[in-house]
Amino acid sequence: MTDRPRTRLYLDAPLGSGLPVALDGDRAHYLRAVLRLEPGARLLAFNGRDGEWLVEVTRLSKSGGEAACLERVRPQVPDNGPWLLFAPLKGGRTEYVVEKAVELGAGLLQPTYTRRGDVARVNLDRLRANAVEAAEQCERLSVPEVRDGQPLDRLLAGWDPGRILFVAAESGRAEPMVTAVTARKAQPAAFLVGPEGGFDARELDALNTLPFVVPVGLGPRVLRADTAGFAALAVWQALAGDWTRDGGDSRPPFRAD
Amino acid sequence: MTDRPRTRLYLDAPLGSGLPVALDGDRAHYLRAVLRLEPGARLLAFNGRDGEWLVEVTRLSKSGGEAACLERVRPQVPDNGPWLLFAPLKGGRTEYVVEKAVELGAGLLQPTYTRRGDVARVNLDRLRANAVEAAEQCERLSVPEVRDGQPLDRLLAGWDPGRILFVAAESGRAEPMVTAVTARKAQPAAFLVGPEGGFDARELDALNTLPFVVPVGLGPRVLRADTAGFAALAVWQALAGDWTRDGGDSRPPFRAD
Repeated sequence: MTDRPRTRLYLDAPLGSGLPVALDGDRAHYLRAVLRLEPGARLLAFNGRDGEWLVEVTRLSKSGGEAACLERVRPQVPDNGPWLLFAPLKGGRTEYVVEKAVELGAGLLQPTYTRRGDVARVNLDRLRANAVEAAEQCERLSVPEVRDGQPLDRLLAGWDPGRILFVAAESGRAEPMVTAVTARKAQPAAFLVGPEGGFDARELDALNTLPFVVPVGLGPRVLRADTAGFAALAVWQALAGDWTRDGGDSRPPFRAD
Repeated sequence: MTDRPRTRLYLDAPLGSGLPVALDGDRAHYLRAVLRLEPGARLLAFNGRDGEWLVEVTRLSKSGGEAACLERVRPQVPDNGPWLLFAPLKGGRTEYVVEKAVELGAGLLQPTYTRRGDVARVNLDRLRANAVEAAEQCERLSVPEVRDGQPLDRLLAGWDPGRILFVAAESGRAEPMVTAVTARKAQPAAFLVGPEGGFDARELDALNTLPFVVPVGLGPRVLRADTAGFAALAVWQALAGDWTRDGGDSRPPFRAD
């Protein structure tokens, strides 16, 4: 066994035995000027479809570079974590939600505009870059899609009723997470977390009439919106997701130390 | 029912029917100059022992003030959430861990120095202020103790073996959280989360020999240290803690909106 390369890149290109992979200018700059790598350096690469590959840098210049796929070190695994619908937050907390949601295996990130939300737009390019960086860091095999922000009512109007929408409820009737998730663990899921000010009464009324909505309780403390999002994802993973498998064997056969 | 006061203060003083409560200079300044309150304003107060009280400000000056306890709105509840032992992190992430751990009901916060940790001391006053602020915000009835940083080996040497120490394991043999916690849900618990660089081999060897240590797996992605801490707490609360009760009834009878 060799050391696991420290550098891990998401590349939106086919990966397969012997295939060359182009490195764009940003990637090449990062490898050359930031990490000070040279041709011959080995990295890990993934594209969300072909598993994780050991690749070797073959060319690096100011304008770009190339690498060659050497060996597949992990097969692709299905990636069916819950979607996260979240009201964008102030003060860097949206970026934090994206980072944590990627680590916690969210399948899709949907910024959601609500009546009491105090952030009316998101910097989509930045959130997508956050998602890529988090996926690279956490050794995830895919980068979840980050969609552009949408108003809550439009998202609900177009909802696929086959996907449960767990709504983090601050008050009112709600099932504890453990029973709500356990009873529906085979179904596609999404979590909706409101803004710091909570949903307004009309939004709650609308949510409560929808057959795919399940209000869930996150305990007696009032969680901040960012906390509610990743707490819900963590509990889902532990009860219904990929944390239920025994750990330690899903990562590649490199030395840990 | 009246509106729930927006302001909620932790006061380290007895709270009880008719009791006057002194407000120190910082608190008085905050109420007077930041919130622009005047005598007659109503707040909520808690001290970690006597439940939550509706109090009325009776005097406010530059140097301090006083309030009077009017009515208890929530009884004290036992607060036996798991301890969190965490390696301090860079870049504001330690403060974030404290905030989230308070929201997620951690019973005690213990900064823990490990061989690969890259932060060698903590600003204890600041972390304690973070904990108070988070408890006030999240409507918790207590503020967990934040202890001064200690080396891991000293903490392990003095450990009460009656308290399970779940160790967030990045690799090696580990039980999935759901089975590890469910099998030990009646026991006092703590979680230990290492630094971004992980534990070193000697630390892992030492941990693995201890009868109270249970390595737990947090899934196939490599969580950042902050994520691991609050993900573990959230799952514990959902499976063994106060999230298992039906929600909505534990908070006081004020209007939600």
